[in-house]
Amino acid sequence: MDERLRRQLDFALEIDKEKNILRQTHLSGQGRRENDAEHAWHMAVMAYLLREYANEEVDISRVMLMCLIHDIVEIYAGDTYAYDTEALQNQKAREDAAKEQIYSLLPQDQKEELIALFDEFEECRTAEAKFACAMDNLQPLLLNNSNDGGDWRAHQVSAEQVRRRQSRTRLGSEVLYQVTENIIRENIQKGSLTD
Amino acid sequence: MDERLRRQLDFALEIDKEKNILRQTHLSGQGRRENDAEHAWHMAVMAYLLREYANEEVDISRVMLMCLIHDIVEIYAGDTYAYDTEALQNQKAREDAAKEQIYSLLPQDQKEELIALFDEFEECRTAEAKFACAMDNLQPLLLNNSNDGGDWRAHQVSAEQVRRRQSRTRLGSEVLYQVTENIIRENIQKGSLTD
Repeated sequence: MDERLRRQLDFALEIDKEKNILRQTHLSGQGRRENDAEHAWHMAVMAYLLREYANEEVDISRVMLMCLIHDIVEIYAGDTYAYDTEALQNQKAREDAAKEQIYSLLPQDQKEELIALFDEFEECRTAEAKFACAMDNLQPLLLNNSNDGGDWRAHQVSAEQVRRRQSRTRLGSEVLYQVTENIIRENIQKGSLTD
Repeated sequence: MDERLRRQLDFALEIDKEKNILRQTHLSGQGRRENDAEHAWHMAVMAYLLREYANEEVDISRVMLMCLIHDIVEIYAGDTYAYDTEALQNQKAREDAAKEQIYSLLPQDQKEELIALFDEFEECRTAEAKFACAMDNLQPLLLNNSNDGGDWRAHQVSAEQVRRRQSRTRLGSEVLYQVTENIIRENIQKGSLTD
């Protein structure tokens, strides 16, 4: 088999492992913990359906692709919970090493392309990255809200922590940020988030 | 909240259930059974990475979207195993009812758009649908091959059955069909597929 195709298929098989990287979020209906691949799928579909609410015009194909690949580094770097202060400190170093390692399986041009796309997502500056980041926040918020804020309760998360994180949602979509803010208020009232 | 946005968010939450629809395919490393959301994510990433092998030029954004949504109907219709002759007979009727039910959660324009995209995938006639169908076949084949054909062994699948199904792969990509054919031959030799 052609060397280029062999590398692409090796990568395709390696990323299957993303389905084993568990997040702190639970599926709706008080379900099991979600994994990274499911989360990425959900974000990409939501991005497409909700694209009319992006603050700026976006190339939705690039947004979807960013959603789909943004957690591949976690196959080697592990998931970092949004409210785990200690793990957040070395997250970038872990993910930089991981991205070099995993994307090196691909042909050079695709390695460079996907690393550039991942970096763009992380920097959250372009219109596409800002909208993808908004999905990265909104998707678990919807699930967690559907479960009466169980994930926040379990980790004793405060409304201030959620608002700080969701400030990135506002960069991508003012309309969806309002949804977020309403959900935060409801969860403060229900006692799921400390005020 | 605006009625349109409420419908979109209701749909976004409803499709979370796709993560509970189990397939017959097992994850690499002799892992657990795969679910539809993971499968769709994997197909969409593979479609992007392997697009250079499509027989015809494709709008990769539409291919990815088709991959992402093609199994949403299974939330209500259930998964139909590719080699379950009985279930295949009423698959279309089950899925037609399911698509009407689930997409009706969305605003009318998005309902029509996604149903058209799903129908296009199922008919497997456009360049995009053919390449998406090729991914729908290649993705589980790669996983199953990495597990020494365990899924085929468990269901006593014959090489002829696999070749019949994979004829759709050929419509999307001659190059990837050759990969498929090589894998089938190896698995006949190993005794994972009956000849």
